[in-house]
Amino acid sequence: MSDSLFFVLVSMPTQARNSSFLLSGRFFRVAAALGLALLAQTAHADGGMWPFHNVPVEQIKQKHGVTLTPEWLENVRLASARFGSSSAFVSADGLLLTNHHVAKGCIQRLSTAENDLAAKGFLSATRAEERRCPGSEVTQLVSYIDVTARVTANNAAGATDARARQTAITEVEKQCREETKLRCQVVTMYRGAQYWLYRYKVWSDVRLVWAPETRLGFFGGDPDNFVYPRYALDVALVRAYEDGKPVVTPHYLRLAKDGIKDGDTVFSIGNPGSTDRSLTAAELNFLRMQWYPIRVTNAEGARSDLLEWGELSAENQRRALDPLFGIENTLKSIRGENRALNVERLHQNKRADEAFWKAKAAELTEKGALRFKSGSDPWVAIAAATEKQNRYAFEMTGTEYAWGTLLRVANDIVALAHEAQKPAGEGLRAYREAVRPQLRNTISSNRIWYRDMETIRLQSKMEEAMSYLGQDHPFVARMLQGGTPQEAAQRVMAGTKLDQQGERRALLEGGLSAINASNDPLLVLVRDLYPIWTAIRERDQREVEAVKEAAHDDIARLRFAVNGLNEAPDATGTLRLAVGKVAGFDRDGILNPWTTTFYGLYDRNIAFGNKPPFDLPANWLAARDELNLATPFNFISTLDIIGGSSGSPAVNAKGELVGVMFDGNLEGLGNRFAYQERTARALAVDVRAIVEALDKVYGAKDLLKELTPHWK
Amino acid sequence: MSDSLFFVLVSMPTQARNSSFLLSGRFFRVAAALGLALLAQTAHADGGMWPFHNVPVEQIKQKHGVTLTPEWLENVRLASARFGSSSAFVSADGLLLTNHHVAKGCIQRLSTAENDLAAKGFLSATRAEERRCPGSEVTQLVSYIDVTARVTANNAAGATDARARQTAITEVEKQCREETKLRCQVVTMYRGAQYWLYRYKVWSDVRLVWAPETRLGFFGGDPDNFVYPRYALDVALVRAYEDGKPVVTPHYLRLAKDGIKDGDTVFSIGNPGSTDRSLTAAELNFLRMQWYPIRVTNAEGARSDLLEWGELSAENQRRALDPLFGIENTLKSIRGENRALNVERLHQNKRADEAFWKAKAAELTEKGALRFKSGSDPWVAIAAATEKQNRYAFEMTGTEYAWGTLLRVANDIVALAHEAQKPAGEGLRAYREAVRPQLRNTISSNRIWYRDMETIRLQSKMEEAMSYLGQDHPFVARMLQGGTPQEAAQRVMAGTKLDQQGERRALLEGGLSAINASNDPLLVLVRDLYPIWTAIRERDQREVEAVKEAAHDDIARLRFAVNGLNEAPDATGTLRLAVGKVAGFDRDGILNPWTTTFYGLYDRNIAFGNKPPFDLPANWLAARDELNLATPFNFISTLDIIGGSSGSPAVNAKGELVGVMFDGNLEGLGNRFAYQERTARALAVDVRAIVEALDKVYGAKDLLKELTPHWK
Repeated sequence: MSDSLFFVLVSMPTQARNSSFLLSGRFFRVAAALGLALLAQTAHADGGMWPFHNVPVEQIKQKHGVTLTPEWLENVRLASARFGSSSAFVSADGLLLTNHHVAKGCIQRLSTAENDLAAKGFLSATRAEERRCPGSEVTQLVSYIDVTARVTANNAAGATDARARQTAITEVEKQCREETKLRCQVVTMYRGAQYWLYRYKVWSDVRLVWAPETRLGFFGGDPDNFVYPRYALDVALVRAYEDGKPVVTPHYLRLAKDGIKDGDTVFSIGNPGSTDRSLTAAELNFLRMQWYPIRVTNAEGARSDLLEWGELSAENQRRALDPLFGIENTLKSIRGENRALNVERLHQNKRADEAFWKAKAAELTEKGALRFKSGSDPWVAIAAATEKQNRYAFEMTGTEYAWGTLLRVANDIVALAHEAQKPAGEGLRAYREAVRPQLRNTISSNRIWYRDMETIRLQSKMEEAMSYLGQDHPFVARMLQGGTPQEAAQRVMAGTKLDQQGERRALLEGGLSAINASNDPLLVLVRDLYPIWTAIRERDQREVEAVKEAAHDDIARLRFAVNGLNEAPDATGTLRLAVGKVAGFDRDGILNPWTTTFYGLYDRNIAFGNKPPFDLPANWLAARDELNLATPFNFISTLDIIGGSSGSPAVNAKGELVGVMFDGNLEGLGNRFAYQERTARALAVDVRAIVEALDKVYGAKDLLKELTPHWK
Repeated sequence: MSDSLFFVLVSMPTQARNSSFLLSGRFFRVAAALGLALLAQTAHADGGMWPFHNVPVEQIKQKHGVTLTPEWLENVRLASARFGSSSAFVSADGLLLTNHHVAKGCIQRLSTAENDLAAKGFLSATRAEERRCPGSEVTQLVSYIDVTARVTANNAAGATDARARQTAITEVEKQCREETKLRCQVVTMYRGAQYWLYRYKVWSDVRLVWAPETRLGFFGGDPDNFVYPRYALDVALVRAYEDGKPVVTPHYLRLAKDGIKDGDTVFSIGNPGSTDRSLTAAELNFLRMQWYPIRVTNAEGARSDLLEWGELSAENQRRALDPLFGIENTLKSIRGENRALNVERLHQNKRADEAFWKAKAAELTEKGALRFKSGSDPWVAIAAATEKQNRYAFEMTGTEYAWGTLLRVANDIVALAHEAQKPAGEGLRAYREAVRPQLRNTISSNRIWYRDMETIRLQSKMEEAMSYLGQDHPFVARMLQGGTPQEAAQRVMAGTKLDQQGERRALLEGGLSAINASNDPLLVLVRDLYPIWTAIRERDQREVEAVKEAAHDDIARLRFAVNGLNEAPDATGTLRLAVGKVAGFDRDGILNPWTTTFYGLYDRNIAFGNKPPFDLPANWLAARDELNLATPFNFISTLDIIGGSSGSPAVNAKGELVGVMFDGNLEGLGNRFAYQERTARALAVDVRAIVEALDKVYGAKDLLKELTPHWK
């Protein structure tokens, strides 16, 4: 069984590969024929996260016997929505189902020491009591068009001219915004072989409707993360509002009364963040030798600093819960990816694949059917850029501000003001126009910032910077100003007012002049560091990213010419459809079934003595005899998902909701680099478990009526 | 944490190792000092299966805070009994608790197509209806004495003179039998550094009292074998009889009403078959490169032949169940050991350990404190013998008769007759006097032989022999006599009467003259093959076994001089006590709890759709709401067990029965070569699950009264 489309071509019959008539004109006919061959050969592999403009309908029909009609596709697409990562409308009144861990930011921000919704859970008695999530929004992909021609029009001369392309993208996005009033984003597919303009409807009023206790949502805690068999009710319900009223949504998913069963075909629709399946052998090797070890070390450092601080008091512990959750989730995931990277077979396959494409490139170039834009050999160019990336890695890491810190928010304020001054297409990619609204939203939300915790996190960052850059690096020198990290962090945080929503808003609105006039010590710190910080990033963008992008363009163009749309593009954080089968798996001789049941929840709870993170709240202990314990709880499938897919609806052939994706198994972490159908599994909460819990444990009669009006 | 006592010495302080005063006289004082150092250093490791004459009482007290009194030790020893592998008396009336899979041979032999006790289970309504197990016996270790001096007395001249030793052993055993009327066996400890005479009381009337359905005893079947979490009621009750009445047993284990819990100290008492912890690096390498691959291949061949035959009819399938169970059990176990052998660290540790002992030997030899009997370097001698073993491996394998086949039984009849003619100590080790009674018992039992199945197994053997020896080897030529394996097997089996108990008994009693007069085709076959078969084994015994044994003697003597009784001897199929802690384990990031519950049984049953091997009989499905599902079912511990430990009682500090050992996890298979405290776990059925099942599912009120008279 092949691991992915990626590697299939390598095992094609020799006469097809060595075909001697691959001349310019004939090339594309042959490529089409090869495409068919690929299609036939890959009928067993379900890897790939497909954009809606390129769902392999025919392939799915052949393999699964399921015909996806345009109406089916339109309904699941419009029923899907981005909320943090992924979610889906499940009623005509704007009710959205997602993961507990996706809604966790909202739940946490609505919590106080006195009323801890994360611990106690939340169920809104009436619609009037649904609680608005600070800084949250929901977006829906309403339409898309191919803009490859527009983006690449002025770009024919040389693919290294990333600026022209960036200018075009910015222009396309701007024009779209003005014409449609929608959020517009140009999405790069096949690493530049295609560009698509995506248009989103945005609702910025999202309210929490129901969330179970974290003990249910995150049952098993960090130890059970990425583990299967699993017993987590990792779901939550929110509702989108418009003009103070629930959004009316003609497109939503009906809950499948019969759920799903072993062997069934299943689909998931969501926004997988990123995959790296087209990385070259040189890049994979860099990740293995340098990048992942650094990331693991950093995350472990941040984690232990927060843990230590959390141990000082119960309130500290509560405050640290949200960031710790994020860090531990990251840590297990990068550790898993790191493990996948250390499997030599991955690199062997990659080298074999690369050898094939290099030979193919040489052959086509000689016959005049191919000319690379980026130079004579894109693999060599990428290897050279990776060498530089390797050299710059310590500086990039040492000057990076961790996501979710007030330090990062302060820098975002400064960076946004600077970027607004630059001509379109010239600034830092991370701050280009398309992402600015969301950034502004986050900055100006009424989220609660804990000054004491942010002090610890700032100190943590300073220590990290010291270890990567040394004490004499100007970045470090300015951070510490002669003090210890502890002193410096306390001095800065003692005086800052950026934890106050009004201060952040004023600076955001005031732009550069407000920033330059500020004497807030945190803002002054990032403002002083900004020239160093941005120079390091601009260098990376210029010498590493741009070079790689152009070279990857070329490889993608070659692959795209041969494989065409039969190969799914890498994930890009945009809406994709995946198809798979519900199936158990064999882990080194241990058979794991396709589903778990509530029986297993109590087995694990009791086996671990009802102790955290395997403890259950009183309502669940009391409901043990009420519940139908045989209800399927968490099921697994071969669905190809990755970070960002959290909260994606799992849908059956009829387009009904059968579950909510919330995790993968440990083996699934390797999916970042190559899809593994045999062992990688995606985890979903079964819709029947949600209904059973809402009914028997939470007594949420009104919600059930809204969710299952069609159930008898 | 050190993996075993075995490797501890390597990490001792340098000054102790390089101690310069290790001269002859002082050597043993130093050794004693080293022994104490070892004791202190190994306080964390529970590895080791300890003979009752050398239980490390002080070490257990230090580590576990449990004082094992002589009375405690005597009671658990006399309460333990060998029944197939291990078992324990659990009432004053001779009731014995063991595993379902240990009693399986008996259950199977009492079954017929019409009344399949394996499928339906068995519960004797009254004592009168308890059913005698054909060919079974129970033995109890009543006493033991050190006979090292007697065995090695005439042996001082040269350790290669294995014959003198064997003669002495035979003499000791014979004299003991005549004096005590007990079964007597000389047990070799520390590979010849010690010899112990064990005396056993034997009961040959054993009756089946209760056995659950195989679906419970072997829940999860082969897929769940060696797997944890586990949900198997792998227990059965038999009763020992004497003169037609239940044996009265003052020594038995009382059932612990409170069972056991996470972190508790636990003991197991049983007859672990064999470990190979003192193998040399050369031997481990041979096992990895040659022996295990051969064994896996053979077992797979035998398995697929039986499976194929079983598919022909439901009755075939039923008949094949028992041998298939054995083969699949063997297969998973040798695969697991094979996997453990392929971990390079094992070999690294072994080489490091060996380097240390070689240096130690050189040092001591130079100082005149040591003289090896077997030659200048026992490791070199073992390596040379292993080289021969490697060369003879195909002939040994090709001519081996699989255990449990009628072919093997026929050969046993011939071999026993021949061996009886030889002077004591000169024959094949596998047929020495001590084991003959049990062999005779097995041969002359009224076990049912299925001629059709034996035909397939004979054919299977013939094909295997062909593949190892080639068609021209005299062994193969005589087997086939010009026909195909199928023809030859059918011809032999069509005419044989050895499936009849009377025929076998007559030949057994008639000895060589009866054998030479027989024209039973199966007997004639093995009789003709006997000279080849026995010559190959005699050569192996002479050139491989004897050489290795003498060399291992030397190494053991060296180790024993340094480590003394602080190191447990390799398992030898005799009664041992192991000590450990009840503890979960972490399997590559997946936390496994210390116990499972009945909740988990139903979770797994439902998750696999109540399909074999995860299906449950109707009584269990019906009892779901009756049972206390939170009852601990299967628990795990760090107990050091191995094949042969099946049915061993698990005992708490008070000497009460808390469970029955029945399996290990996959990681535990590596225990053969080195104990792994961190991940290897022994599985036991919790005594509370047995009581709950007897009560709620089987309604065995009388048995419960007998088992728990002291429970309120």
